[in-house]
Amino acid sequence: MQFIGIIRSPFTKLIDMPIQPRGASQIEGEIVIDSRYEEGLQDIEGFSHIYLIYSFHQAKRIELKVVPFMDSVPRGIFATRSPLRPNHIGLSLVKLLGRTDNTLKVMGIDVLDGTPLLDIKPYIAQFDHVGESRSGWLSASDDEIVKKRSDNRFM
Amino acid sequence: MQFIGIIRSPFTKLIDMPIQPRGASQIEGEIVIDSRYEEGLQDIEGFSHIYLIYSFHQAKRIELKVVPFMDSVPRGIFATRSPLRPNHIGLSLVKLLGRTDNTLKVMGIDVLDGTPLLDIKPYIAQFDHVGESRSGWLSASDDEIVKKRSDNRFM
Repeated sequence: MQFIGIIRSPFTKLIDMPIQPRGASQIEGEIVIDSRYEEGLQDIEGFSHIYLIYSFHQAKRIELKVVPFMDSVPRGIFATRSPLRPNHIGLSLVKLLGRTDNTLKVMGIDVLDGTPLLDIKPYIAQFDHVGESRSGWLSASDDEIVKKRSDNRFM
Repeated sequence: MQFIGIIRSPFTKLIDMPIQPRGASQIEGEIVIDSRYEEGLQDIEGFSHIYLIYSFHQAKRIELKVVPFMDSVPRGIFATRSPLRPNHIGLSLVKLLGRTDNTLKVMGIDVLDGTPLLDIKPYIAQFDHVGESRSGWLSASDDEIVKKRSDNRFM
């Protein structure tokens, strides 16, 4: 695995961050791709949303059970989006505002400034749109998620 | 990076596979997690859909421009879901049918049998549901996507 670029956001500390893009819907950030991979960005501007796959580079340990930000009891790590998972891989779906050379402007960014990027995938409604779904333990309202901010539990 | 498990599917060759879960909507498979990580699966059965993040382990090279299965002109690799991306990471959203110990039964599996797994994320509508979206170069109909099968272009 090699890092293909870096994520730039206004968040420089792990505490007090939005916990998902939904809570950061108005937050803009930039994805700066290594110039050697710039050619691979061609045509991406046609997509309104992209998945970012990145490294939770500040996660220093693994825990198989965590209490998620939106809950009060321990849950299996794979039933959460917590950073303390075995491979410390993060996934965020963000809005793509535009591209200038090797830099993408995105909105709804919920990751730490300086986060190393592993991959970008276009969001394709015909592959990724889910109609009906069940979200397990998560019973929070949209409003609670939007307002929720991180604390130090995963540090 | 370490593999946390393996994906079992009916697809043993890279040719003639569905190109996305949408084309494999009736195909069942299993995700077998290493027993040392089984505890991390707790509560996952509450989610109707999960993202699988895996290694395109048969991808042997990187190409920054590819002609996607659903297109006829070269596109930047990051504007496609092709395996030949710098880190050979795959992302598929599948339906979760159930769990027995360290094994998940899933539906809509579009990956090769024996694919090594890197991570599982729960699909959470409040984070991952996109209303309006644009899907760039992809102009194929649902029907075309469902019928499309892989060929040897990414081998």
